[in-house]
Amino acid sequence: MDNFQKYHVSFIGSGNVAFHLAKALYNAGVAIDEVWSPSANHRQALAIEVNAKAADKLTALTTASDVYIIAVPDGKVAEVVAAMPKVKGIVAHTSGITSMQVVSERFNNSGVFYPLQTFSKQRPVAINEIPFCIEGNTEHAMQTLTQLAALLSKNIHPVSSDERKKLHLAAVFVSNFVNHLYQMANTITDENNLPFDLLMPLIEEVAAKVKTLSPAEAQTGPARRNDKKTIAVHREMLNAHPDFEVLYNLITGQITKKYYE
Amino acid sequence: MDNFQKYHVSFIGSGNVAFHLAKALYNAGVAIDEVWSPSANHRQALAIEVNAKAADKLTALTTASDVYIIAVPDGKVAEVVAAMPKVKGIVAHTSGITSMQVVSERFNNSGVFYPLQTFSKQRPVAINEIPFCIEGNTEHAMQTLTQLAALLSKNIHPVSSDERKKLHLAAVFVSNFVNHLYQMANTITDENNLPFDLLMPLIEEVAAKVKTLSPAEAQTGPARRNDKKTIAVHREMLNAHPDFEVLYNLITGQITKKYYE
Repeated sequence: MDNFQKYHVSFIGSGNVAFHLAKALYNAGVAIDEVWSPSANHRQALAIEVNAKAADKLTALTTASDVYIIAVPDGKVAEVVAAMPKVKGIVAHTSGITSMQVVSERFNNSGVFYPLQTFSKQRPVAINEIPFCIEGNTEHAMQTLTQLAALLSKNIHPVSSDERKKLHLAAVFVSNFVNHLYQMANTITDENNLPFDLLMPLIEEVAAKVKTLSPAEAQTGPARRNDKKTIAVHREMLNAHPDFEVLYNLITGQITKKYYE
Repeated sequence: MDNFQKYHVSFIGSGNVAFHLAKALYNAGVAIDEVWSPSANHRQALAIEVNAKAADKLTALTTASDVYIIAVPDGKVAEVVAAMPKVKGIVAHTSGITSMQVVSERFNNSGVFYPLQTFSKQRPVAINEIPFCIEGNTEHAMQTLTQLAALLSKNIHPVSSDERKKLHLAAVFVSNFVNHLYQMANTITDENNLPFDLLMPLIEEVAAKVKTLSPAEAQTGPARRNDKKTIAVHREMLNAHPDFEVLYNLITGQITKKYYE
């Protein structure tokens, strides 16, 4: 692939990740050849956004693209790999938890193009700050996927399948699980007719703090102080929510154990 | 108290909250009369910063201040209230979990001046964005504490003792507990020689997302999708950390239950 030519990329998938990546690559000057996904409506909507053809059948996808990006739910990657036509271009998936092997077993040029971020169609995303975790089964695949990521972000990292799985696990703790705690707090504020927004400056500061302090240094609060009286008052307030109380007790116990045992 | 006069405030406490509030009030033109705290070094350090006198004894604190701010650990408020001289000024504490009554039982003019934020001496804080939760046992106390807060922030809310306790509980979920999850993720990245910084854009986006989406709408991930295969892979990786695995299983179960039962 000549550096002076445009990259040609096709997408399999039209969910949140495909949507943001395809649009960002298109805006960066990449030609998006085709988009396929099981939903005709979704693939057509994305194809229109990125001036691509909506492919009717995965088995009949173009074989002329330089790169194929499989951005489908983690559990569907293997299925898509099996159904694709035999292509010469690089086939890369975007899944945190799926090993590269799932693709490289079938395709000579393969890799992983994993953006470590949470995507929602409703929200624009600062693509240039996203860490891209890149893996390739050949030097050529590695280089091409790195160059493609470099069109979008300066935050690019070669990451093995094993490392990526660990990152994905860590990401679940800091995103899905953190959001679950936000949701519990939101239930508490709603039930007491208090605006959830009152908590936003705190939410943002807690996130910002770990840029400059390690989470272990940044820890504060009743459990960190082993303040049994405050903990008892909190527990009493949680009587109406057994689920919240179980989680409160577990995390409080873990923090106390970490600092006092 | 005449609006054209300076407010005179004394501080009991020299920890993170006292440090940031005293400095911010001083910078806003408030006269800080005296600072007392059990540690002679700490009270002197803070007194120098805010051009105040370091009081040697709590029982001999000046009785001339307009407002006394008790910014000590939650469990120490009652003790401080009992040991203070009988003053005419407004005595307010900064504790989320302590009812106003702890102060108003002894002082005719009393209240609460609760900044809903996490403070570390090492980090500057955007004081003008902090929600101040104000309570007063008289119209005069309410007005004065509100005016004092208005020197620092536009985000001021009258909040009752009961409401404040609920906010404090919700705050523990979104700050201390969230930080605990950050700490677990940091352990996972450290153990695998991966930079924790790779997670920062995700951490920030998860926090920013709930400004525009409710946490229930913002939820994503394997538990939200009921993706049992990914969950099984995660669990296996957590075998070396029983504490992490217990928490993983609990939160995953709670998210799945919330969306699928």
